[in-house]
Amino acid sequence: MTSRIACPTLAARVTTAEQAATHIRPGMTVGMSGFTGAGYPKQVPQALAARIGAAHERGERFGIRMLTGASTAPELDGVLARTGGIDFRLPYQSDPELRERINRGQIDYMDIHLGHVAQYARSGFFGRIDVAVVEVTAILPDGRLVPSTSVGNNATWLELADTVILEVNAEQPAGLEGMHDIHSCAAPPHRAPLPLVEPGQRIGEATLRVDPARVVAVVETRGPDRLSAFAPPDETSQRIAGHLVEFFRHEVARGRLPTNLLPLQSGVGNIANAVLDGLREGGFEQMTAYTEVIQDAMLGLVRDGLITIASATALSLSPDGVADFVKHIDAYRHRIVLRPQEISNHAELIRRLGCIALNGMVEADIYGNVNSTHVAGTRIINGIGGSGDFARNGHLACFLTPSTAKGGAISAIVPMVSHVDHTEHDVSVVVTEQGLADLRGLSPRQRAHAIIEHCAHPDFRPMLQDYVDRAWVHSKALHTPHLLPEALSWHQRFLDTGSMRA
Amino acid sequence: MTSRIACPTLAARVTTAEQAATHIRPGMTVGMSGFTGAGYPKQVPQALAARIGAAHERGERFGIRMLTGASTAPELDGVLARTGGIDFRLPYQSDPELRERINRGQIDYMDIHLGHVAQYARSGFFGRIDVAVVEVTAILPDGRLVPSTSVGNNATWLELADTVILEVNAEQPAGLEGMHDIHSCAAPPHRAPLPLVEPGQRIGEATLRVDPARVVAVVETRGPDRLSAFAPPDETSQRIAGHLVEFFRHEVARGRLPTNLLPLQSGVGNIANAVLDGLREGGFEQMTAYTEVIQDAMLGLVRDGLITIASATALSLSPDGVADFVKHIDAYRHRIVLRPQEISNHAELIRRLGCIALNGMVEADIYGNVNSTHVAGTRIINGIGGSGDFARNGHLACFLTPSTAKGGAISAIVPMVSHVDHTEHDVSVVVTEQGLADLRGLSPRQRAHAIIEHCAHPDFRPMLQDYVDRAWVHSKALHTPHLLPEALSWHQRFLDTGSMRA
Repeated sequence: MTSRIACPTLAARVTTAEQAATHIRPGMTVGMSGFTGAGYPKQVPQALAARIGAAHERGERFGIRMLTGASTAPELDGVLARTGGIDFRLPYQSDPELRERINRGQIDYMDIHLGHVAQYARSGFFGRIDVAVVEVTAILPDGRLVPSTSVGNNATWLELADTVILEVNAEQPAGLEGMHDIHSCAAPPHRAPLPLVEPGQRIGEATLRVDPARVVAVVETRGPDRLSAFAPPDETSQRIAGHLVEFFRHEVARGRLPTNLLPLQSGVGNIANAVLDGLREGGFEQMTAYTEVIQDAMLGLVRDGLITIASATALSLSPDGVADFVKHIDAYRHRIVLRPQEISNHAELIRRLGCIALNGMVEADIYGNVNSTHVAGTRIINGIGGSGDFARNGHLACFLTPSTAKGGAISAIVPMVSHVDHTEHDVSVVVTEQGLADLRGLSPRQRAHAIIEHCAHPDFRPMLQDYVDRAWVHSKALHTPHLLPEALSWHQRFLDTGSMRA
Repeated sequence: MTSRIACPTLAARVTTAEQAATHIRPGMTVGMSGFTGAGYPKQVPQALAARIGAAHERGERFGIRMLTGASTAPELDGVLARTGGIDFRLPYQSDPELRERINRGQIDYMDIHLGHVAQYARSGFFGRIDVAVVEVTAILPDGRLVPSTSVGNNATWLELADTVILEVNAEQPAGLEGMHDIHSCAAPPHRAPLPLVEPGQRIGEATLRVDPARVVAVVETRGPDRLSAFAPPDETSQRIAGHLVEFFRHEVARGRLPTNLLPLQSGVGNIANAVLDGLREGGFEQMTAYTEVIQDAMLGLVRDGLITIASATALSLSPDGVADFVKHIDAYRHRIVLRPQEISNHAELIRRLGCIALNGMVEADIYGNVNSTHVAGTRIINGIGGSGDFARNGHLACFLTPSTAKGGAISAIVPMVSHVDHTEHDVSVVVTEQGLADLRGLSPRQRAHAIIEHCAHPDFRPMLQDYVDRAWVHSKALHTPHLLPEALSWHQRFLDTGSMRA
């Protein structure tokens, strides 16, 4: 028994990843831990992939339905996608191997709001959950589980699955103990108000619980979350951050935001990370965060005291970020709370706290509809993540992107988005390095003026203005003028020529 | 002093509608009462229209910005739209005169979730509210106001407006007193949990409050809400209801819904009314409703005890419905609660209660995106209403429509919707008279199969299948296969020929 497994009952279940993986059989639905590359199981998925590969070599069909918290890593999504053993997957993903197979039509992928997964699983909308595979940091003497670097949907998988496999990862910082706050929600009609009124408030307990009778295997692992370094902030992201800082200052001056703003949510990835870092220039103090994921920039704002408390469901840090986190973990423990994604992304709490949602996007159209997920309407990138949880129910929904992509071949502002993830009703502010369009209280035609003038790249502005001018003359109705035969032509031109330029 | 104005201070402000309207000056932002044709001011808007018309005849510009609860009536939206005196309007509307001017590009209209209006107004997103014009049923001796047949955003207008004009409508049933429950929300970061856990629970007080010092005019009126009779249920709506009943029974049998279902939300209009009436056939007892509007069918379900309690923000009844309501008002008072629309459509409460959302739509596409508002992507009909509040945060989001319109010329199932109000992430179930597609847990291509097979009209099924077959071969990526040059061609054909048929 190692020091990380202090419960005799569960220590007696220690076995190999290979043996554990035999509990996963063809056609099963498996709930896995893992959220934005943090806290995913490191060994059982690889053993499962070997098992699937061997079955396929024998000519036997072996596919599973796989539910996670969000994106994982090559050791999970990557290795399983390569075997052809994933029939169905939800929610958010970002692994290149998995994405490629989804876009080849080989894997059925359901893109769903991260805050909705647990409630729908609990209500049986995804069928029975056969097996849970969950990474934890340690097992306490009484069998309670210290969560890992992400909580995600783990409480739900542990509650619902017939069979549970635990991975105890000795590489995850032992000091994580005490940082989590696990509150489980009921199914309707038995729901009570969630008592949380401050981002840092604790409303649950620090550990996960599992019925030991359902734990069929415990696997000891040692390995880091595989997260790469973030790109350093560049001029584009600094300019986006600069526009946001100016906007927030303006809102504070008008009395529409408190001087410490409102709890920040920030999406995943390099742009979000860099823009968050740019908020340092705003002079805002005593900020808070109520978000899904803590990346390096947010950790830095916490370290430097600009953010006093950060609530999330995952720590997605670069190797340098992990080193800093481990070094100062006793200080961070009082400033970081990790919760189930059902709570971090809960409609009730996002609305109550009045979060400021900062999310990247693929493109926005002139009327303020936002595409967060698809290239040219057909190719999924990563998924909607929690952006919809925060955009619909938060206080301000800000969407950020460089105004062009692929070396200027693609405009992030288009006549009509090729896929809608956030409708015109849910987008408050659009920001590019060109500027910021404040869409609050504007009609569609007023929004078009603001977005073209403030957000579009100058190279594409004349094309957009030309579209608008002609649509405002020739459209059959003028509430939301469009020329339907042309509305998606920019995307088709990109598919045909590699560029949206005429 | 009439018996309806029992407060001496406010009785002293009684004046004519013409005099009251002089407090509304060019450029002002006016918050008006009125929600789905109920509880709107009957005389001041007409006097204002005359004032605007006279100014225009003198060659003076006179336009106002107008915010309401939702749709009103010819005496408000209609008469003001005709004068050309509305510069800006939000949210939901349904008056033909107003709609026509919006679609001519003469009025800026912002279509916004009904549950978002009050919080954004309170936070100053729409600028200062200069004047409130609110219909009430009576004024109590201490100046508290008995609300009318709708509550809408009235508490917010009364709280925010510099100047208040009250219409006291003696035609509204005096027995409304005691049916309302007014709870006002704070702006973030000062929000506490809303204590409501049952649809019928009271969390506020029965009257509206206003600072008498800001009341500049009180106008006595007498006139009914102008609502017409609902169309009787036809075979199409009965078949839609039948598919829903079968689905709900199936969900109850699987243990995914309680035997009395979950609190029902039902959209406005004839289809929603008829479908709700069709739920009588389901054999469900002790149902509840947590919704925006009570139309005749819901009143009937309450009267007959099938719905034990109905919470809404408006009573939108036909003349026969009003007669029934008035006759049995003492019984209804214990089974109906009227709340501010900020509460009836609140994300926190819709999520907690787990509402079943039943809303009509214009069209759905093969991947489950829904258009609730636009013809051919450009012409606004009424607006999104509360459908987004309930679809995003409720437990089941069901969208209903006949499979064809305009005598079969238009298919309600199309390759790509021409405007998105509810994304693929927010649509659980699509129902037409042809059948029901349960989209929960499905990938886009699986959804396309289900929608074409179960919901499309047989006349359009081969065209849809042909699109899908070719898209699944020729699309550049196969997560959400599309042929962009064709995706909106059905709508363009309708614009060109009056029919989507090839």
